[in-house]
Amino acid sequence: MQPLKLTLALDMMGGDHGPRSTIPAALAAIDEFPELHLILCGDEAILTEQLKMHGISSHEQFSLKHCSQTVSMTDKPAYALRNKRDSSMRAAIDLVDSGAVQACVSAGNTGALIAIAHYVLKMLGGIERPALISTIPSIEGDPVYMLDLGATVNCDADTLFQFAVMGSVMAEEVIGIKQPRIALLNMGEEEIKGSDQIKRASMLLAQCNEINYVGYIEGNDIFSRKADVIVCDGFVGNVALKTCEGVAKLILRRFETSIKEQLSAQLLGWLLKPFIKNLSQAVNPDHYNGASLIGLRGIVVKSHGNATKDAFLSAIRQAVHEVERQVPAKIKHRLEHVLIDKA
Amino acid sequence: MQPLKLTLALDMMGGDHGPRSTIPAALAAIDEFPELHLILCGDEAILTEQLKMHGISSHEQFSLKHCSQTVSMTDKPAYALRNKRDSSMRAAIDLVDSGAVQACVSAGNTGALIAIAHYVLKMLGGIERPALISTIPSIEGDPVYMLDLGATVNCDADTLFQFAVMGSVMAEEVIGIKQPRIALLNMGEEEIKGSDQIKRASMLLAQCNEINYVGYIEGNDIFSRKADVIVCDGFVGNVALKTCEGVAKLILRRFETSIKEQLSAQLLGWLLKPFIKNLSQAVNPDHYNGASLIGLRGIVVKSHGNATKDAFLSAIRQAVHEVERQVPAKIKHRLEHVLIDKA
Repeated sequence: MQPLKLTLALDMMGGDHGPRSTIPAALAAIDEFPELHLILCGDEAILTEQLKMHGISSHEQFSLKHCSQTVSMTDKPAYALRNKRDSSMRAAIDLVDSGAVQACVSAGNTGALIAIAHYVLKMLGGIERPALISTIPSIEGDPVYMLDLGATVNCDADTLFQFAVMGSVMAEEVIGIKQPRIALLNMGEEEIKGSDQIKRASMLLAQCNEINYVGYIEGNDIFSRKADVIVCDGFVGNVALKTCEGVAKLILRRFETSIKEQLSAQLLGWLLKPFIKNLSQAVNPDHYNGASLIGLRGIVVKSHGNATKDAFLSAIRQAVHEVERQVPAKIKHRLEHVLIDKA
Repeated sequence: MQPLKLTLALDMMGGDHGPRSTIPAALAAIDEFPELHLILCGDEAILTEQLKMHGISSHEQFSLKHCSQTVSMTDKPAYALRNKRDSSMRAAIDLVDSGAVQACVSAGNTGALIAIAHYVLKMLGGIERPALISTIPSIEGDPVYMLDLGATVNCDADTLFQFAVMGSVMAEEVIGIKQPRIALLNMGEEEIKGSDQIKRASMLLAQCNEINYVGYIEGNDIFSRKADVIVCDGFVGNVALKTCEGVAKLILRRFETSIKEQLSAQLLGWLLKPFIKNLSQAVNPDHYNGASLIGLRGIVVKSHGNATKDAFLSAIRQAVHEVERQVPAKIKHRLEHVLIDKA
């Protein structure tokens, strides 16, 4: 059953701030999108209380779905999947599965979200594993998509190929790039470098007319916009970008402490601090806002755990946008084309 | 046959500058170490000509070994291995193998060096794969060892375990850290995260009394000195650190160009530039100087391709130090202890 209008489920209890961030974000979202209907999943008493603080008892654009449990930030994925069946996270995903809503948004535990969404929603036909995709900053300022950022640890060549197809669709549909340039992250640009999976994925991509594959990219070029979509396995993507946060902190600390005698260096450290802090958040996958879990038969958007009202609102906007662009259907459609092309 | 005194073989033709860097470095090294003997491998005519420019025709501390070939920076490893048997790189490694010298140093093509050294020298008993190890900068300023940086693309749990043993020996013997703290690079600090290889390697390390294993470390902490030795497979290590160079360039570029209207930002970019340039070189494995290829039955030190006289001299110093500390013998000895401990 397809809902008649734009309907999203929100996990109201996820994230460090829970309803204190998610309620104001939900209220801002229904103001911004008059056609939007929200199903707010969470503890009804707490949600009602928070809504009352905003002077609202009910609204035609939202309804409450009571859930007795919350997935905590420390719950292990398998535990959350087995034992948190009445959680706000599970409820939001179940609503996507039943077709009652077109997408869900959660700021909760990433591992649990991936496990539950994978289990409940299942994979799109032709896709074997889910991927977490997000934009990363670039030198020219235009966003670059990178996937996978931690949903799938080990990827074979076919999985990397499927990620490339999904990334291509996301860049076309969500950012509007025509024939996005797809690159595989590797140790070197030469064809002989890298693991067997990567070499085989490269061969598959080079043979595929539906993908604008531009070859390998090295870590030092991922922010340089030599490609619009960078594909790697979840382990490499997660570790590489977290390491960037490490080096950003290293740069800052060097200026703050090592050269204390030099006032100019300290001044530099002071000027750099807010910039590095923003950058650290922009590169660390744990802090991404609006990362999408793709490859599933439904739209799941991840807001970061420390999401404020504005961050959660921006994740809701992204979910709306993906619903409007019908991302899962487009991925499925593209994949069918690619498979015909390959056959 | 063990040589009577400290003898090294130098690949004089490797690197972007060849003998223009390696000759002055060799001359400085024999000045610095009166007990050192060097076998200079390369084109005899070119080397003689370069030595003449320094006013030297012969010296009791060095001898020349003529080689008719040079491994170029673009030669593929397999090609260099098969077709460059009379190269200066191969000669230097062959001299280690025959026992005529105790170590060799090259600024040449890294892939070819690994392939030839692996083929000629063979692995130490108990070690399955070679690793490239180097120090990386840290926030407190003390060096941290990281391995592997690109020698072995796919590592199983046993290989990661062996890398941990080798890294532990290097940190103890070369930097002099007692009971160095060993960490595995992973996606998260929780035990359930990561690939099966990493989880198994973690179990093996936790059970081993000979290793001071401190658990998982995430990318954002590798420069924070939470561990003295960071272990990962060659693909992850290489990509993660190259990505750091990318983010360092991103930081610089943002200040140089994005905010052109602000003089203070431009000034900041100008002040940052030399620092970022140094850091980029310090984190990108392609630019490391004095990285050691370990796990082999002989000492091979890699100087970076763009090595100046000082950089090549510093790589020679490191080779001398590893010979004095008998690194391969210590690795072998430690490994035997560990295996007894495991049995």
